[in-house]
Amino acid sequence: MRATTIHAARDIRVEEVPDPVLKRPTDAIIRVTAGCICGSDLWPYRGENPIRPGSTIGHECIGVVEEVGSEVRDFRAGDYVVVPFCHCDNTCAHCRAGAQSACVNLGMTASGQAEFARVGQADGSLVATGGTPPDDLLASVLSLTDVMPTGWHAAVSAGVRKGGTAVVVGDGAVGLCGVLAASVMGAETIIAMSRHEPRQEIARAFGATHVVEARGADGVAEVLEITGGIGVDSALECVGTDQAMTTAIDATRPGGGVGFVGVPHGVELPVGTLFAKNVGLRGGMAPVRRYLPELLALVQDRSIDPGRVFDLTLPLEESPEGYRAMDERRAVKVMLTP
Amino acid sequence: MRATTIHAARDIRVEEVPDPVLKRPTDAIIRVTAGCICGSDLWPYRGENPIRPGSTIGHECIGVVEEVGSEVRDFRAGDYVVVPFCHCDNTCAHCRAGAQSACVNLGMTASGQAEFARVGQADGSLVATGGTPPDDLLASVLSLTDVMPTGWHAAVSAGVRKGGTAVVVGDGAVGLCGVLAASVMGAETIIAMSRHEPRQEIARAFGATHVVEARGADGVAEVLEITGGIGVDSALECVGTDQAMTTAIDATRPGGGVGFVGVPHGVELPVGTLFAKNVGLRGGMAPVRRYLPELLALVQDRSIDPGRVFDLTLPLEESPEGYRAMDERRAVKVMLTP
Repeated sequence: MRATTIHAARDIRVEEVPDPVLKRPTDAIIRVTAGCICGSDLWPYRGENPIRPGSTIGHECIGVVEEVGSEVRDFRAGDYVVVPFCHCDNTCAHCRAGAQSACVNLGMTASGQAEFARVGQADGSLVATGGTPPDDLLASVLSLTDVMPTGWHAAVSAGVRKGGTAVVVGDGAVGLCGVLAASVMGAETIIAMSRHEPRQEIARAFGATHVVEARGADGVAEVLEITGGIGVDSALECVGTDQAMTTAIDATRPGGGVGFVGVPHGVELPVGTLFAKNVGLRGGMAPVRRYLPELLALVQDRSIDPGRVFDLTLPLEESPEGYRAMDERRAVKVMLTP
Repeated sequence: MRATTIHAARDIRVEEVPDPVLKRPTDAIIRVTAGCICGSDLWPYRGENPIRPGSTIGHECIGVVEEVGSEVRDFRAGDYVVVPFCHCDNTCAHCRAGAQSACVNLGMTASGQAEFARVGQADGSLVATGGTPPDDLLASVLSLTDVMPTGWHAAVSAGVRKGGTAVVVGDGAVGLCGVLAASVMGAETIIAMSRHEPRQEIARAFGATHVVEARGADGVAEVLEITGGIGVDSALECVGTDQAMTTAIDATRPGGGVGFVGVPHGVELPVGTLFAKNVGLRGGMAPVRRYLPELLALVQDRSIDPGRVFDLTLPLEESPEGYRAMDERRAVKVMLTP
């Protein structure tokens, strides 16, 4: 099949690789109808994460079931499905407690930017869309594989609540989905930190009531001013850098919460500040499967339109250009169609 | 008045100091009927915190109002009161949100191990007992100034819930009160980590279902075994050292929570582990005033007996011996009576 592969920092190729095959009786093979590039794919792209040269890359896709293993009961060839980037059995103790991203049978989609992908624990992982999504919902359904549930997880982890105040640090696709999540959850004041006009526009469409362009201490000062000197109830840290985490913690009111979903790179947590302010911290890889049914329903009844984060769609063969566009921030998020 | 003072590491004295006086119209002066030594007093005692030579020490006391400032409305001379170690106006935005330990008018009791103490923001801080407590409740009422609400705060911050599982790291007075709190909140499995027989006995009386003597990785392994390999829903970190924090985090199930109330000394938070496990972290100085009415009611109707942590009572003049006894772990917690 044709698949996106990574060979070194900034060396993305589309080439012929072996088709994925069923390895376990609980696996399924998906024919990808749409995949996408994740902000976290930029870490290896930029050389910040180790790379196994020639490996496939991409963990977000939707598509049609091509083949299922002998123990798969709930899906069969032809079913249109959403593939959570992290696979889970949805029955173990961790899954039952809502921590599907720590499933004892955890797996990850390994070739989401390709023609086919293998999914482990198909019965636990997949969610059927009930047929081919209408064209105008395709992007939003695709967003449910990772980016929207991750923004949602930031909001859940930060304890966003009806009538509360929230700041979102990071205007990448996850941050924008965090704005949307906070809005759905009923936060009254939603501050998006962004200095990019097109992203500010999406943030406003998603429910941001304020936009702060300043960063670091100046940005925190503006958030404090907006909240009457108190700080926000909830901060969504959607970047993963130390500066973003510091901003999130400093902007949070005493007793408030920080939800963090950016994969931490160089983050040092200030335990003294957390203690002094009684600020809670919670986050990690999103338990996508937990949120999927609820979010799919919101997409299908057109209550939310998270697919708006896709501002560039390319054919699979142009995957390298998709990486360049996201790396240079020319695109918020790129959809790839095999 | 006679007061406990600290001059250097391990140099505790009882000497004559000026009586505290009203400094602000919202202050009150309390005649101390009972004070006590806090585990956190041992940090300066052991030379781990800076010392201002000759300063009074001790932040926990109960007593009788001696005098009030001109703006104090709710208390008058003769009222028997509980003095939260941190004073608050109980009306600012942080107090209204339940973060009284971050009150904009925050103060601290400075001479709880003495004959008199000044309380700031008397109307917001003090809670009346409705007369002199009966002798058998005195210790429990005294515990409400800090140690019991702090253990309670650990349980609240760790998200202890009915039917859940909890581990308490630390068998000091706060840890033991954490066991009691988890029990009141309905946790079904409560694991006390302790290798001191008299403390294990109190832990069991407070509701511990299991005692683990091992520390570090071995202790974590035992906790995992007790919880069927899953880890606890909630870990109460009641020490403040890096080892205790590591134990708490490692013993917690994915998606669970760590509540930390030990003043952090040398703690480095493992952001990667927190992220990988989606373990929440929340804690800090307890908002004592928030919990006081509920806890006082539980003490007064004899539902809880947190005063059991006091296993040594000394006259104020023997304060130095009290410090020695706690430092050498001969006593769990020491009451001082002026």
